[in-house]
Amino acid sequence: MDRFLFGAAYYDEYMPVERLEEDMRLMREAGINVIRIAESTWATQEPVSGEFDFSHVERVLEAAGRYDISVIVGTPTYAIPPWLASQNPEILAVTERGKEKYGARQNMDITSPAYRYYAERIIRKLMECVQRYSNVIGFQLDNETKHYHTSGPNVQRLFVRYLKKTFGDVEEMNREFGFSYWSNRVDAWENVPDPTGSINGSFRAEFEKFRRQLVTEFLEWQSGIVREYIRQGQFITHNLDFEWRNYTYGVQAEADHKKAVQCLDIAGCDIYHLTQSKLTGKEIAFGGDLVRSLKRRSYFVLETQAQGHVNWTPYDGQLRLHAFSHIASGAAALMYWHWHSIHNSFETYWKGILSHDLKPNRIYREISGIGADMARIGPSLINLKKKNRAALLVSNESLTGLREFPLPGGETTYNDVVRRYYDALYELNVECDILFPEDAEYFEQYELLVVPVLYSAPTKLLTALSDFAERGGHLVAAFRSGFANEFLTVRHEGQPAVLQKCLGIRYDEFTQPDDVWLADQVYAAAAKECSATVFMELVETEGADVLAHYDHPFWGRYAAVTEHAFGKGMATYVACLTTPAYTKEILKRVLEQTGIWGIEQQAAFPVIIRNGVNETGRKVHFYLNYSEKEIRQPYLHGDGKELLKEESVKNGQTLVLEAWGIRIVVESEA
Amino acid sequence: MDRFLFGAAYYDEYMPVERLEEDMRLMREAGINVIRIAESTWATQEPVSGEFDFSHVERVLEAAGRYDISVIVGTPTYAIPPWLASQNPEILAVTERGKEKYGARQNMDITSPAYRYYAERIIRKLMECVQRYSNVIGFQLDNETKHYHTSGPNVQRLFVRYLKKTFGDVEEMNREFGFSYWSNRVDAWENVPDPTGSINGSFRAEFEKFRRQLVTEFLEWQSGIVREYIRQGQFITHNLDFEWRNYTYGVQAEADHKKAVQCLDIAGCDIYHLTQSKLTGKEIAFGGDLVRSLKRRSYFVLETQAQGHVNWTPYDGQLRLHAFSHIASGAAALMYWHWHSIHNSFETYWKGILSHDLKPNRIYREISGIGADMARIGPSLINLKKKNRAALLVSNESLTGLREFPLPGGETTYNDVVRRYYDALYELNVECDILFPEDAEYFEQYELLVVPVLYSAPTKLLTALSDFAERGGHLVAAFRSGFANEFLTVRHEGQPAVLQKCLGIRYDEFTQPDDVWLADQVYAAAAKECSATVFMELVETEGADVLAHYDHPFWGRYAAVTEHAFGKGMATYVACLTTPAYTKEILKRVLEQTGIWGIEQQAAFPVIIRNGVNETGRKVHFYLNYSEKEIRQPYLHGDGKELLKEESVKNGQTLVLEAWGIRIVVESEA
Amino acid sequence: MDRFLFGAAYYDEYMPVERLEEDMRLMREAGINVIRIAESTWATQEPVSGEFDFSHVERVLEAAGRYDISVIVGTPTYAIPPWLASQNPEILAVTERGKEKYGARQNMDITSPAYRYYAERIIRKLMECVQRYSNVIGFQLDNETKHYHTSGPNVQRLFVRYLKKTFGDVEEMNREFGFSYWSNRVDAWENVPDPTGSINGSFRAEFEKFRRQLVTEFLEWQSGIVREYIRQGQFITHNLDFEWRNYTYGVQAEADHKKAVQCLDIAGCDIYHLTQSKLTGKEIAFGGDLVRSLKRRSYFVLETQAQGHVNWTPYDGQLRLHAFSHIASGAAALMYWHWHSIHNSFETYWKGILSHDLKPNRIYREISGIGADMARIGPSLINLKKKNRAALLVSNESLTGLREFPLPGGETTYNDVVRRYYDALYELNVECDILFPEDAEYFEQYELLVVPVLYSAPTKLLTALSDFAERGGHLVAAFRSGFANEFLTVRHEGQPAVLQKCLGIRYDEFTQPDDVWLADQVYAAAAKECSATVFMELVETEGADVLAHYDHPFWGRYAAVTEHAFGKGMATYVACLTTPAYTKEILKRVLEQTGIWGIEQQAAFPVIIRNGVNETGRKVHFYLNYSEKEIRQPYLHGDGKELLKEESVKNGQTLVLEAWGIRIVVESEA
Repeated sequence: MDRFLFGAAYYDEYMPVERLEEDMRLMREAGINVIRIAESTWATQEPVSGEFDFSHVERVLEAAGRYDISVIVGTPTYAIPPWLASQNPEILAVTERGKEKYGARQNMDITSPAYRYYAERIIRKLMECVQRYSNVIGFQLDNETKHYHTSGPNVQRLFVRYLKKTFGDVEEMNREFGFSYWSNRVDAWENVPDPTGSINGSFRAEFEKFRRQLVTEFLEWQSGIVREYIRQGQFITHNLDFEWRNYTYGVQAEADHKKAVQCLDIAGCDIYHLTQSKLTGKEIAFGGDLVRSLKRRSYFVLETQAQGHVNWTPYDGQLRLHAFSHIASGAAALMYWHWHSIHNSFETYWKGILSHDLKPNRIYREISGIGADMARIGPSLINLKKKNRAALLVSNESLTGLREFPLPGGETTYNDVVRRYYDALYELNVECDILFPEDAEYFEQYELLVVPVLYSAPTKLLTALSDFAERGGHLVAAFRSGFANEFLTVRHEGQPAVLQKCLGIRYDEFTQPDDVWLADQVYAAAAKECSATVFMELVETEGADVLAHYDHPFWGRYAAVTEHAFGKGMATYVACLTTPAYTKEILKRVLEQTGIWGIEQQAAFPVIIRNGVNETGRKVHFYLNYSEKEIRQPYLHGDGKELLKEESVKNGQTLVLEAWGIRIVVESEA
Repeated sequence: MDRFLFGAAYYDEYMPVERLEEDMRLMREAGINVIRIAESTWATQEPVSGEFDFSHVERVLEAAGRYDISVIVGTPTYAIPPWLASQNPEILAVTERGKEKYGARQNMDITSPAYRYYAERIIRKLMECVQRYSNVIGFQLDNETKHYHTSGPNVQRLFVRYLKKTFGDVEEMNREFGFSYWSNRVDAWENVPDPTGSINGSFRAEFEKFRRQLVTEFLEWQSGIVREYIRQGQFITHNLDFEWRNYTYGVQAEADHKKAVQCLDIAGCDIYHLTQSKLTGKEIAFGGDLVRSLKRRSYFVLETQAQGHVNWTPYDGQLRLHAFSHIASGAAALMYWHWHSIHNSFETYWKGILSHDLKPNRIYREISGIGADMARIGPSLINLKKKNRAALLVSNESLTGLREFPLPGGETTYNDVVRRYYDALYELNVECDILFPEDAEYFEQYELLVVPVLYSAPTKLLTALSDFAERGGHLVAAFRSGFANEFLTVRHEGQPAVLQKCLGIRYDEFTQPDDVWLADQVYAAAAKECSATVFMELVETEGADVLAHYDHPFWGRYAAVTEHAFGKGMATYVACLTTPAYTKEILKRVLEQTGIWGIEQQAAFPVIIRNGVNETGRKVHFYLNYSEKEIRQPYLHGDGKELLKEESVKNGQTLVLEAWGIRIVVESEA
Repeated sequence: MDRFLFGAAYYDEYMPVERLEEDMRLMREAGINVIRIAESTWATQEPVSGEFDFSHVERVLEAAGRYDISVIVGTPTYAIPPWLASQNPEILAVTERGKEKYGARQNMDITSPAYRYYAERIIRKLMECVQRYSNVIGFQLDNETKHYHTSGPNVQRLFVRYLKKTFGDVEEMNREFGFSYWSNRVDAWENVPDPTGSINGSFRAEFEKFRRQLVTEFLEWQSGIVREYIRQGQFITHNLDFEWRNYTYGVQAEADHKKAVQCLDIAGCDIYHLTQSKLTGKEIAFGGDLVRSLKRRSYFVLETQAQGHVNWTPYDGQLRLHAFSHIASGAAALMYWHWHSIHNSFETYWKGILSHDLKPNRIYREISGIGADMARIGPSLINLKKKNRAALLVSNESLTGLREFPLPGGETTYNDVVRRYYDALYELNVECDILFPEDAEYFEQYELLVVPVLYSAPTKLLTALSDFAERGGHLVAAFRSGFANEFLTVRHEGQPAVLQKCLGIRYDEFTQPDDVWLADQVYAAAAKECSATVFMELVETEGADVLAHYDHPFWGRYAAVTEHAFGKGMATYVACLTTPAYTKEILKRVLEQTGIWGIEQQAAFPVIIRNGVNETGRKVHFYLNYSEKEIRQPYLHGDGKELLKEESVKNGQTLVLEAWGIRIVVESEA
């Protein structure tokens, strides 16, 4: 993009009164330069089957044009009209919980030919309508597409076709899935049972993998249609979402983000997060790092909260901190969901910039201030580049694997462990990229690879990790990694499978810690918060050094954290779930060993430092205060200019960061 | 009624042995003068389709006649026989959870023509049978009728007919419900989706409103049939029940009590409550005040507990306290559920007066004592009149509204807030009437109107509240009031909508309090229990005085409680959920301002004072000790006679209230 | 058996690599002399309908033969192949939760003729295959057979047939079930409603009784088939399981163990239990005592844990303690589930002796040590006989009864109360037999009968209990006993019904204790842990002595524990749920009164003493240390030889029991 996109979703269709001109004026005055329209509103665009009415779309495009506001047009396909559900009820998905009813969005079978037929028709009509508007800068396919647990008989037939292609014959499938167990062996393709009733974790996980592919295929199909219409300079994007815990939390289970973005020009996402006293910036950073890493360049935040939920009403200054945190992660667009609060239906209390009274308010005023800053300093921040030395490896297969075979207690999930490691890096001010198993080709670009609970992995990937260490990288692997192959079959080699030599350890037993502590010599924090939690492996060394062992009358002879020089590199293993504080100690040692530990580590959470290189090649440093206290923080980087206050700043000078405050310094020399 | 009805439900059908004569004798000896029979026992009355056997009914009527015991006959329609479910399975309701199975009561579709056909037949046969018995004093229609979540295709068709009548055309409906959101716009009546799958709160709430109307219509239909048979002096009643939390709690969600009683001669209800150390009398008072207010006169308690659940076994003296508390609320009948404990099935441990051994016991002896008192003093207490100066406004629409759009945290419901205010008044010894939105015509009879969380209200009602204050009343409104209209559309006027001028405030933001306290100058209790909980609005004044503001670093500039002189009256606003103690402080100030604060406020919970005027025009005062401690309480009213001890009492004299004790004084002068 | 069976389940079918010979060698070296095969693997034995392949069975039998390992062959019928579900979907049970899907085991309708047809075919083919192998010593029918909640229309038709047979006509049924209540009266057999929708506890309990009979009938049917094939010396057994709380807990609700074993030659079971710091031996003892009592002789432990769940990984020494504890209860076989950990599917983390790497490990080494001991000392321990003086009475009908009419709070179940009493005896080192209602003929063999919460019992059984006391026994009965008859009808005689005279008490009221304590003179522990919990009856004495009364302002006049000399014996009644400590005090007094209190009571948990008489008529004493502390315990019995250390031991000599340690002494004189 050539300018920073600052905007909001706009739904003329939902307005209780006529106020389009007023809204455009208010947006323009607030510095908003882009709106996103049309997604979700199929029934308005096609009120009766085959009768189209794009008047809302057109009048918004025209009004936006008058105010020099760009527009991203979304296809409306993720929410079907009542007439379609009524006429073709087979479109509503059959899931593990039964047949979906009409009413919510995202309740359709995305493989349904009828759905595809009508979706294609409305997309083409919409594209025909909007293509003549010069202020349309790009398109969003559908919205937050996932597989929605579709698993009806037709989907199962597709799955059997997929299995045939994957395994060739049933005996191979029986073997890979271990179908001998409990008499599950299949004699013929037509007798493959319904995976939703199965107790075979391998089979169920493969069904999840297959269903994630449906999402990839669906987006490819939509992008193919839209691409027929777009003109030079227009982009195709999509709004990816993450594991949802009433806020953005971790890797998405129902889609393969890495594969899904291949048909897009630019990756987009939505990020929602706790705020008020619970604001940490972690979700902004995690989501941003993940989506930026998908295409290894700037990305769009297509939705984030203005006021959001009732309990997210921001304190003064927090909206500004949110905004610049997104930019600090490399966002090239920041769009609020949404302009105005809705007066009915379901997300009535997911508030927009304007409250229900549709008048300029505290939120609008704060966003206007951000808009003004954006206009002024945006050009220095657009398309930030990052060259991170550390990367974190995540995996949909391992996420699914730990759903099928949960960690003891059933409460700690894959994403909890991923976030334990990510958050530790974040709090230590170490930026990282987030890689997927498909990214092995990029491993060598990093000095440090952090691999939490990679429970399910093909041998090739494990070998690549071992090679990474052998060639000079530092590998940090946590418990359960390598345990099962890509079909969730536990490896019968010694554990940690494939990585034994690299890590210099072995184990065959593990348990749930019950009053188990860690004892060590090397970590400063050992005296506090050093319990082993959730899962622990009883590790014996075969060449590795023990950094910490279990402090327990029976398990005391086993290692909890080990370190092994391997080839030109190093490999650290963490055999249990450590506390946040202890995890940071483990990583601190590794960061020192790799030399990543540096000047940013003179600060730590709640002061967060994020960095990039702007289009002029200058280094940009964001100093973010994630606390309600004023903090005096020495400026740690090269001399430059602070953009918000427009002051020059010298290395060592004290930055006075007010509550939830920000400073952004561009170094003077490129 | 011309005598106080003291009785029990009697089920000859359930007896394991013949003991009708014995039971009648025991009841007569205990002072029981009325029994309720026949409800629930359709299968006994019509063992085979079309073959009737009223022998149980007749023999009980005859035996009761011999012992001078009156009888209320219930229609048996709320529990259908197996043959009917077997022969017309469509009678079993389809609900949100699927098709009901036969087995429980209240599982039928009350709109089913087949059900209506067979119900009418048994009602007519029963009426023909009982009309010749002179001791039948009245009839109960069905029992605890609700809509039972009926929502099958036939009910949905009725709902569409209702929608057509309400809105005229689909576009009007689309507009009122905000159906543009998530592509829910309906193109034609035949495509109206199943409301049970909908995410549109307005649409779902309207379905609830419609289903509550089904209850009203059902009772009207039954009363029409019964009324064909009744003779002069006989009454028609119905047993209303309340929100159930394993005991009576609040406003009933599945019926409109105000409308349902229109076809009745006298309102009846059941009230069950915690007892032992958890006995407070609150449910007795709340249920009584509500049902008394429905027809603005005395009411029947058709069921209450003798022993009840295992954990309700009363302490000595508590049954007596229960009984006179009902009378103190204006009950003209008090009937236990039930005479004998049942030996099978489901409510086996919902015990009656007699335990399973069917012998006189501690409970029977205590009830006999009450019966003797009733016979003696009942004439002084029958048909008590109340002239309350305060009223509390409740609303089924707001109850439904806060189910669709719950308060943050999801645990605090509409009835919790209603009870917060009601209980505060109760503990302050301020009696009140309970009004529904239909009662606006009565507003001017009161000096104080308390309006908690009136989330959904038509403009007319809000205007009536404003007028009430303007004309000299004192309005107390709590958070969320006025926020949405009668279709659950959030008003886009400034909030509190319609009431802004009256209250002298405005707000557009709100949040969930997180460590927020209230700071004020006016309330004595401010130092303790002054947290804001669940929900808080960020109120700015426009003329009102701030009585309390939030004590919080970011929300400190907003008001929490305000007071505004408006016209000839006053309006107090409470912008958050306050603690019980703080709520009492808020109300205390208001009561002082209105002059309601008076002599009864010299006592407070656990001493509860309730008042009325008897048929001779004399004031009656109940002094109730809701504690297990003896309390010495000065007598605060005019000189008179204490009925239980038959002693004269003078103002200022000390009443020694034993644990769970009672004194009832009739003033000497009318 | 003529030798102690020490073994494991072996699944060649599940192996990821060829290692049969290696496994047999390792097992032989570990002292394993028996394996259990073939159960669960129908789809391997009959991969295509009608095409049989017993190669896995045969090769294991042959290999085992080469290593002198005996084999128990299980019929594979508890897990059906996909082709069968596909071809005869009616085999999948319809339960209260709907139609089962294929995928898990134990999801079939065990009454289905199609299932029976195919099950019989595979059993016969398997029997034909294995009958020529001399190392086959016996057969296991099916596995953990239960009714699996089968309740489809066909099962309900069978149930109606059962009801006809039980009651003769509908009126009798209406009367026994109390069907008058809520209009449930049935006019004709064809209108009997679906019991799964019923609220009638009697009717539902009868359905449970009927469904437990289906299990008995199913096992009889299978044993009939297998018995056609077995040769002299071969046995038929079955693997009974218990109430499951992620470990073995109590009486099984879905089968009648007493009846189910009648078609077996020897009773078998599986027992799983907590370990690590939570190891107490209680489940080993309870399960063993119950199964031993079924046929009143030695039994098989067909499955127990090697490593088991992740949180069961044993500490050093615990596997040995497990093993000898089973033997101390009279087990004649001890078999681990299972030899190797499985690499896929569902029980992937229910680990076997070998971990997933299939290599000898810590567990294997500990088991090898046990195996060596077994070989050496097994002959002294085989077929231990017990002559217990105390017995505990349990009842499936009461278990079901307390499910239909739960104790207040809903958390304390029948088995919790049973275990409260069993565990108290266990901790006091009093061994007991566990009797069922069918065992009344054996009552007189005991001096003490403990009867907890016998909620549902026929008059005959209650009379037998009364007779037991009258003739000189000591009866201990706990609350709720005798309350309802065999049809779950509450008795309308005075309570405790039938037992009033024997116990010398009466009550008709009961409640849930709320801050109620026990006060007494006779029990030493009274000062501590003397609260009444869950349920309390308000007992008045009619001849009995009060041992403890309630300490409460209102319930203080009622008795909590009473004692009554009756005929030649005694009867103790406990009217509430007492704490574990108080329960032990109550039993201690009884044990002293009966004279059972003796030398073993000089030790107490965590030192557990279990006794038996071996085949040479010598007394054997097990001293088990259920703690992680070393304990010095005097040897309390006659001089003899300690088997593990091969040392002679004299009465009074100190045994030094290491953490989780064991000593086994055989007395020198028979």
